Amino acid sequence: MNCRQCGGRAAINMRHHKLALCAEHYLEWLPEQVARALEMYGMLLPDDHLLVAVSGGKDSLALWDIFARLGIEADGLFIDLGIEEAAGYSSQSRQLAQRFAESRHLRLRIVDVSAELGASIPEAASLTLRGRHKPCSVCGLTKRHIMNRIARDEGYSVLATGHNLDDEAAVLFGNTLNWSAGYLARQAPVLDSAPGLVRKIKPFCRTYERETAAYAVLRGIEYVYEECPHAEGSTSLYHKDVLNRIEEDRPGMKLSFYLSFLKARQEGLFSNPTASPELHPCSACGQPTSAPGICTFCRTWDQVRARRAQTE
Amino acid sequence: MNCRQCGGRAAINMRHHKLALCAEHYLEWLPEQVARALEMYGMLLPDDHLLVAVSGGKDSLALWDIFARLGIEADGLFIDLGIEEAAGYSSQSRQLAQRFAESRHLRLRIVDVSAELGASIPEAASLTLRGRHKPCSVCGLTKRHIMNRIARDEGYSVLATGHNLDDEAAVLFGNTLNWSAGYLARQAPVLDSAPGLVRKIKPFCRTYERETAAYAVLRGIEYVYEECPHAEGSTSLYHKDVLNRIEEDRPGMKLSFYLSFLKARQEGLFSNPTASPELHPCSACGQPTSAPGICTFCRTWDQVRARRAQTE
Repeated sequence: MNCRQCGGRAAINMRHHKLALCAEHYLEWLPEQVARALEMYGMLLPDDHLLVAVSGGKDSLALWDIFARLGIEADGLFIDLGIEEAAGYSSQSRQLAQRFAESRHLRLRIVDVSAELGASIPEAASLTLRGRHKPCSVCGLTKRHIMNRIARDEGYSVLATGHNLDDEAAVLFGNTLNWSAGYLARQAPVLDSAPGLVRKIKPFCRTYERETAAYAVLRGIEYVYEECPHAEGSTSLYHKDVLNRIEEDRPGMKLSFYLSFLKARQEGLFSNPTASPELHPCSACGQPTSAPGICTFCRTWDQVRARRAQTE
Repeated sequence: MNCRQCGGRAAINMRHHKLALCAEHYLEWLPEQVARALEMYGMLLPDDHLLVAVSGGKDSLALWDIFARLGIEADGLFIDLGIEEAAGYSSQSRQLAQRFAESRHLRLRIVDVSAELGASIPEAASLTLRGRHKPCSVCGLTKRHIMNRIARDEGYSVLATGHNLDDEAAVLFGNTLNWSAGYLARQAPVLDSAPGLVRKIKPFCRTYERETAAYAVLRGIEYVYEECPHAEGSTSLYHKDVLNRIEEDRPGMKLSFYLSFLKARQEGLFSNPTASPELHPCSACGQPTSAPGICTFCRTWDQVRARRAQTE
């Protein structure tokens, strides 16, 4: 298989794009794709101040790298979740994120969940859920809260995440299997800002996971290879697996599934395409919430601290 | 595994319903389910005159049988497609449909496509598509045309088909993978009548294929076991296969996928939930069509006859 640009030996063959490229041309091609997504979906405005959520994985580091190469200034935000299973998953991720930032003279903000909130994510999950569930819901809730708070408090106007096409297609697939009307109507490459909420963008929403991984490897980016140890057996991984099997049989299906969804919505399929629930400020932390009184984040972490006090 | 009703040996275990039943109680249970679906979706009106599309397969014969057991009068319509591959698929289906009708003193109408239209379905497909595609599109088009024409001309007010949950879920899945807005908004257990179109109902829309098969076997109904020989490799069978694998991992998923879709639509997810294209009578046959001038059925069969005349 040869590179379509130069005829040299291809480093990646993208069946869904009917396109093979050598390392050099692939490393040019992907940033062009991201630039196109940024423009196509109006992700960035002229005076934006950009924060990238960095997990230490391939997607977020590749995204931060591409922003730098496109001349788009962006600070990073790493949230240390305190997940020490799997040979120090969080410590290792933190180190790699820091090393990446230092080597490129980029600014990385770090929030340590244990230091700031009084418990790590696994501890918080075991105190509130008492082992009945995975920590993923507490983790997602906490990350969303922290990302928005840091972005607001530190004057960022937009938050970018490394969600790739496989992530987005799996979420869409899950929301389709049970026809979650609210989630379906709101899933988008850009979530507009609202009072108290910064805009969120997903520049890799059209980029296959294989492509972000290939980019990170070919650019020599050191990233955490492991999935979060708590992700094993999760519904989202199951949905990814089902889609991977369909993609294997029908190359391009994941992309067409996601893009045809965006198109159908834009053309008016849904009756209330951007409706979001009524939001008001949480009476404890001030962040927007749809819950009455205090938000789910504050309620959850109050419970964590109360239970921790009981057990000590 | 024992019958929940009588404690006897179970003949079927429905994991998705968490229900095991013996033969006797299963043969009572399924007609109750059908009666419930008929009522729930308002499928039948007091003075309806009912026609059942009968293919000779398990679904349509089981449905006709259940109508009789529920005291609902229904005539049958068999369309002989002239598919003689697979040891006489159409002849065998016709014989079994006739034998079923005779043994129960039911009236079966028969339309022979070759005699009436001048070519069998495989011949028509090879003359129009010249081997590029499967005959399934010509076949579907022809069956829909004939079913509606016979129903109208012979004074039936409603046409029932044996489509089961697996069929409906596979169609929904396909329409979801490419977000076909028009099809999504219109797929339903009942397609209301419109000028020139009789109402269509699918009383098995909540019934798994396994359940209609078990019913046919336990009732001693003789039916054609084989799929249509042209179905092999079709997209709809591929989608069924994907859903079967998910159902295997998550029992009940097919039913919840279909029902949550119906619920979301009823609750207003889609902006134009029942919009159908503008219809007007075909200038040749008079049946409703959205195509300008003459309908696709007439256009296709005119072409078949013209090509046949050329080759003779």
